[in-house]
Amino acid sequence: MTENQIPDVQGSPDVRELAINRVGVKKITLPFAFFNGKELKNTVAEAELLVSLPKDKKGTHMSRFILLLMEEKQFALLEMKALHQKMLKELNATEGTISFKFPYFIEKNAPVSGLKSLMNYQAQIISNGDFDKPEIYLEITVPVTSLCPCSKEISKYGAHNQRSHIIIKVLFDETQPISLEELAEIGEKGGSCPLWAALKRPDEKFVTEAAYENPKFVEDIVRDVALMLNQDKRVKKYRISSENFESIHNHSAFALIEK
Amino acid sequence: MTENQIPDVQGSPDVRELAINRVGVKKITLPFAFFNGKELKNTVAEAELLVSLPKDKKGTHMSRFILLLMEEKQFALLEMKALHQKMLKELNATEGTISFKFPYFIEKNAPVSGLKSLMNYQAQIISNGDFDKPEIYLEITVPVTSLCPCSKEISKYGAHNQRSHIIIKVLFDETQPISLEELAEIGEKGGSCPLWAALKRPDEKFVTEAAYENPKFVEDIVRDVALMLNQDKRVKKYRISSENFESIHNHSAFALIEK
Amino acid sequence: MTENQIPDVQGSPDVRELAINRVGVKKITLPFAFFNGKELKNTVAEAELLVSLPKDKKGTHMSRFILLLMEEKQFALLEMKALHQKMLKELNATEGTISFKFPYFIEKNAPVSGLKSLMNYQAQIISNGDFDKPEIYLEITVPVTSLCPCSKEISKYGAHNQRSHIIIKVLFDETQPISLEELAEIGEKGGSCPLWAALKRPDEKFVTEAAYENPKFVEDIVRDVALMLNQDKRVKKYRISSENFESIHNHSAFALIEK
Amino acid sequence: MTENQIPDVQGSPDVRELAINRVGVKKITLPFAFFNGKELKNTVAEAELLVSLPKDKKGTHMSRFILLLMEEKQFALLEMKALHQKMLKELNATEGTISFKFPYFIEKNAPVSGLKSLMNYQAQIISNGDFDKPEIYLEITVPVTSLCPCSKEISKYGAHNQRSHIIIKVLFDETQPISLEELAEIGEKGGSCPLWAALKRPDEKFVTEAAYENPKFVEDIVRDVALMLNQDKRVKKYRISSENFESIHNHSAFALIEK
Repeated sequence: MTENQIPDVQGSPDVRELAINRVGVKKITLPFAFFNGKELKNTVAEAELLVSLPKDKKGTHMSRFILLLMEEKQFALLEMKALHQKMLKELNATEGTISFKFPYFIEKNAPVSGLKSLMNYQAQIISNGDFDKPEIYLEITVPVTSLCPCSKEISKYGAHNQRSHIIIKVLFDETQPISLEELAEIGEKGGSCPLWAALKRPDEKFVTEAAYENPKFVEDIVRDVALMLNQDKRVKKYRISSENFESIHNHSAFALIEK
Repeated sequence: MTENQIPDVQGSPDVRELAINRVGVKKITLPFAFFNGKELKNTVAEAELLVSLPKDKKGTHMSRFILLLMEEKQFALLEMKALHQKMLKELNATEGTISFKFPYFIEKNAPVSGLKSLMNYQAQIISNGDFDKPEIYLEITVPVTSLCPCSKEISKYGAHNQRSHIIIKVLFDETQPISLEELAEIGEKGGSCPLWAALKRPDEKFVTEAAYENPKFVEDIVRDVALMLNQDKRVKKYRISSENFESIHNHSAFALIEK
Repeated sequence: MTENQIPDVQGSPDVRELAINRVGVKKITLPFAFFNGKELKNTVAEAELLVSLPKDKKGTHMSRFILLLMEEKQFALLEMKALHQKMLKELNATEGTISFKFPYFIEKNAPVSGLKSLMNYQAQIISNGDFDKPEIYLEITVPVTSLCPCSKEISKYGAHNQRSHIIIKVLFDETQPISLEELAEIGEKGGSCPLWAALKRPDEKFVTEAAYENPKFVEDIVRDVALMLNQDKRVKKYRISSENFESIHNHSAFALIEK
Repeated sequence: MTENQIPDVQGSPDVRELAINRVGVKKITLPFAFFNGKELKNTVAEAELLVSLPKDKKGTHMSRFILLLMEEKQFALLEMKALHQKMLKELNATEGTISFKFPYFIEKNAPVSGLKSLMNYQAQIISNGDFDKPEIYLEITVPVTSLCPCSKEISKYGAHNQRSHIIIKVLFDETQPISLEELAEIGEKGGSCPLWAALKRPDEKFVTEAAYENPKFVEDIVRDVALMLNQDKRVKKYRISSENFESIHNHSAFALIEK
């Protein structure tokens, strides 16, 4: 039996008079060759592809989403709009959402020894909206050290510090993209001290002292990142949060600024 | 040294001129005695308490959130507004968010044998907004069986089916709350067949045949749940999604309707 | 059709000549009323119940595991052996495993202010083995602060510190059980400083200075906990690990001692 | 200050007389170029590197683990022993463990249409033991459809089915490695039907009918996989489990065979 001889149940009409905001596929894991504008980085993404469905259509065609992904050999921020439009065309839809979540690696030199190592960040690219003007968002989770100003101020010596996750999500002017490298750097300036994968003892001395000299509440972190983003003309909207995995508690401190 | 002799760093002024949308604590695990209007159910919640912070205040007082939680002996939907107002007063804030996520148990009788067992659902209560009119949301994740209409239609016998998670989130008129039991029942009517924790063979025969007689695409599930909620005057807004953990794929099918 | 008229497929013979080590149910979430020897604590557990299956039996009877759980109104360390034996009888098996994982709450007073709050720990009870002599294990995850001795030694001021998870698993002489409270205390003595859910400023000063005065490598933590357990006659075997969520890295340091 | 002028706290002697079974680093995320014997596959791994520490040594040198990883440009099953030995040398240890967990992709053709798509599997490579004879393990999680024989037998029509995860872990003769492709194929023969990422309607008809014609209990799955592995001379030990995410329950059925 060929495909044409098999009934197309999804294509039949629907009488409930209810449009569906988004329908599609989630949790698709795939190799993700990401071109960052300068070089190709190989990683793995979890993808989500969704479209709107009008009230008179019973169902969408799920396999088309997968085929769309399988055809792409390479992904890039500047090609997200084209991919978004291709999805809407192939699914015959007016609106949709594409999301790729992936670990992203940046080579960094340790602050004193200069030792090279790869730092990993969680990143996400999202396109959302209609055919002509989909919004493209870029998000990165930047792990940093945060050191508590109150603890430093009130204690004879020491100060509690911990790993924090600064999540920066930006909507940018599509003609002037922002790189993950730029957002990572902004996040790292927002904490008490950046992280590195490999540190020698002189580096460890450096980061310990640097964090102690630069104490930040979770509120300071999101404000300092907001100040930096406010000065960047390419950024049209943002959402900045910081979650501090408190070393003196079994819960997190959290702050959020949105524009 | 007493508390008053120790400097209050958080209370000092801030000069960055940036208000913070939300700041507070996350991932607090606590025993959660929930009164559902009829009986007290003991469970465990993960709590999140956040407030807005004006631009001239350096920081909030994190320990007050914890003390607020520790004082409560019992939680209820109808008392969320009072708790929300208490938090805003104690933190001296104009806006905020409280969220409790918890497993919730409902005793059900198996469809043929009548065997009693506890079915578990993930639930969430959220209050969000200002002092006078915070919005109170209720959310439940209802696991059901979904059976694919296309697979049934095109195959000589059988049809692929799987566990699906229907997530229903409602904003309701605060004077007329909706119960988790009601939302669970609506969700279970939306799938191909409800789930039970314990089934004897006559029950297994029943649920197998019931699902086969009631095939549903992921689109049908969210539409059928939306139809039910559209008829409930207490519901002011909703967000209905279904994620089907496809038995023939290694990814999920997903649909969403919002009102 | 009654249950007896429906074929018992699981009960039919198997010809592959392969015994099965364990078969049963996993990821059952249920209310868990745990009697700790002094008082009843209400929490929620994720349960796993498994039995061995001889080579001539095609399958086990899954619903019996659920019914067994539904009949229990209360759980206790000293009743695990009886529950284990009941499971083996009802499933007609010679060996098996029961596991309950649950958050456990202990009320603690803050070190200076005396403020009361609930600290949450992940706990697990396991029974494993045959009918006459099943082994009963108790496990707890104790979150603590760890402060790096190297960082303290080499830096002008400060020292990196972070949340660590000390996991202690013990096999004990069944006539002399160990309490979760005792294991939590041992774990908390093993870190640089215990955690509390609520701390006032004088407490924060105390914990900051206490951790600074008590630096520990991940290796020190597991050794110090091992020294304490070595002195406890009730402990027959143990497995102690510590995972430090490094504040200067985006990965964990880890150590393990087994006896 | 250079590294040599900074005290080496980890290198100092320890007086507690307690050897440590394993100490090192966990949760390191890195790009993972895996050579499967035929081609290079780009993916991302989470790594864990641990060594034993004698009773007279205070601590290990954590940064060396990271540098070891950063030096490797490519990974392969046949090179795990060399990497294991290199780690033991550089850390001056007698025993250790290396683990890489990573998503692995295999291109498959849909059963009727022949449509090509990438199926993703979770894989893990582990080396464990001393310098001369470390054991090398390979593990794969194979998602399949399982269809319940009891449900099929007792119902007028239909049969409940669901996604199952078959986890196969093998210790093999190091001179004759087994490929992930081979283990995936064995796992897929063990379920009621394999999965594919993309299926057209004729394929969906095929997989629906194939699963219905090949019903399997969770016990059948692990037995059938065990029968296949028993016939492979290269396999010295195995651990086979299957977890069925039951479509008629909110919990899993599970079975395990070890040799």
